[in-house]
Amino acid sequence: MTDVPATHPRYASLRTRDAIVAGVERGVTSIHGLVAHGRGEAFDYLLGERTRDFAREAIDAAAAMLVTARRPVVSVNGNAAALAPGDLIALAAAVGAPLEINIFHASKDRERAIRSHLLEHGAPDVLMPTAHAVLDHLDSNRRFVHPNGIHAADVIFVPLEDGDRCQALVQSGKRVITVDLNPMSRTARTATVTIVDNVTRALPLLLERVSARRNDDAPQALLDRYDNGQVLRAAEIALRAG
Amino acid sequence: MTDVPATHPRYASLRTRDAIVAGVERGVTSIHGLVAHGRGEAFDYLLGERTRDFAREAIDAAAAMLVTARRPVVSVNGNAAALAPGDLIALAAAVGAPLEINIFHASKDRERAIRSHLLEHGAPDVLMPTAHAVLDHLDSNRRFVHPNGIHAADVIFVPLEDGDRCQALVQSGKRVITVDLNPMSRTARTATVTIVDNVTRALPLLLERVSARRNDDAPQALLDRYDNGQVLRAAEIALRAG
Repeated sequence: MTDVPATHPRYASLRTRDAIVAGVERGVTSIHGLVAHGRGEAFDYLLGERTRDFAREAIDAAAAMLVTARRPVVSVNGNAAALAPGDLIALAAAVGAPLEINIFHASKDRERAIRSHLLEHGAPDVLMPTAHAVLDHLDSNRRFVHPNGIHAADVIFVPLEDGDRCQALVQSGKRVITVDLNPMSRTARTATVTIVDNVTRALPLLLERVSARRNDDAPQALLDRYDNGQVLRAAEIALRAG
Repeated sequence: MTDVPATHPRYASLRTRDAIVAGVERGVTSIHGLVAHGRGEAFDYLLGERTRDFAREAIDAAAAMLVTARRPVVSVNGNAAALAPGDLIALAAAVGAPLEINIFHASKDRERAIRSHLLEHGAPDVLMPTAHAVLDHLDSNRRFVHPNGIHAADVIFVPLEDGDRCQALVQSGKRVITVDLNPMSRTARTATVTIVDNVTRALPLLLERVSARRNDDAPQALLDRYDNGQVLRAAEIALRAG
């Protein structure tokens, strides 16, 4: 960990960068993931490094979608595992979803490292990609999934996802919730619900809303009202206005 | 190299990211350089990942400045060397400039790795920082330069430069051409000519303009007309408007 003092104005951002760097050292995060994180930092900076109203609206819809899902899955890549292992595990437990590993740049070693990382953080079990089930609409090796996880899921929570894969999931008839700091990305535009926020800020809020939604009798009404396009437009305006 | 298929809509950006990652593996690029690259990706995304008119205008002025320079130098850091070694060497050859290494985070090993990398890509020679010549207005170890290179230069092409160093070069009476995707950075605001574009797109265009300018009889008139502040304002408007 770095020697940045807690009083530094950008302490949270620098601590988050530390977590990603530690992920690389542990074999959980790819070097490419580090660059993607840098890009996220820039977008977060432009958004003022705080959770905005459009993100809260998406978080609320995501909670409603997760508690009403028949077979939700929490999909985890190297960056998500490095940044928020505990919250991802807690979210999966709260909505009765398995955790499944799915990474952009193929590496069996890294898949195993992410699995160990999640198990060490208290995950009861972690599904891995298999050769027995594939996603349609994808020709890369990123199409391999678990038959009882992503393959059978109706709702997938998949933060920091690639555009091609997000599109393939949606084309397979699944509802996709993502977290992406770039409201213009293909992932952001393709997902069913896009939370434009830092995953380390969004996950605790999502957990809180999932707990609140358990006692709510109208999650479907909220989902019917939700307009992801409107949320993305608000996010892009905020990004460009500074 | 990665397994990203050529059909991926963001193939160019992902290939560029690969080049930076390969640079780290080869000891040419620093880990800090990776995060900086990620930040650049975000700005490039906001600009639509294409060369805009304000960049073409700056590229034209840069070509005029380079062909009229008495002692031009091409300054190379770890990110530039990883992203565009061949184009940097071709540019130096086209304008009769030496290549000189100058990096932000001091490392003799990395300086040597960049030098080898450029020599392998066909550079006839590469100048290194020395203790015999220093830049005024800088107190860090980034002040060391080569007496026959940056120290004696009138025009310096230095893509992806740090703000402090750019300022020190300008204060030393040198004309500075930079490439920077953030039109609001100190480097962008301090340089004489700022090309707000991805270095991998800008360099081939600059090479083309340098060839065209050779047969031009009025490069000075073009330079007299050029207004970098106007170019930066156009770039910032584009960044915010999309």
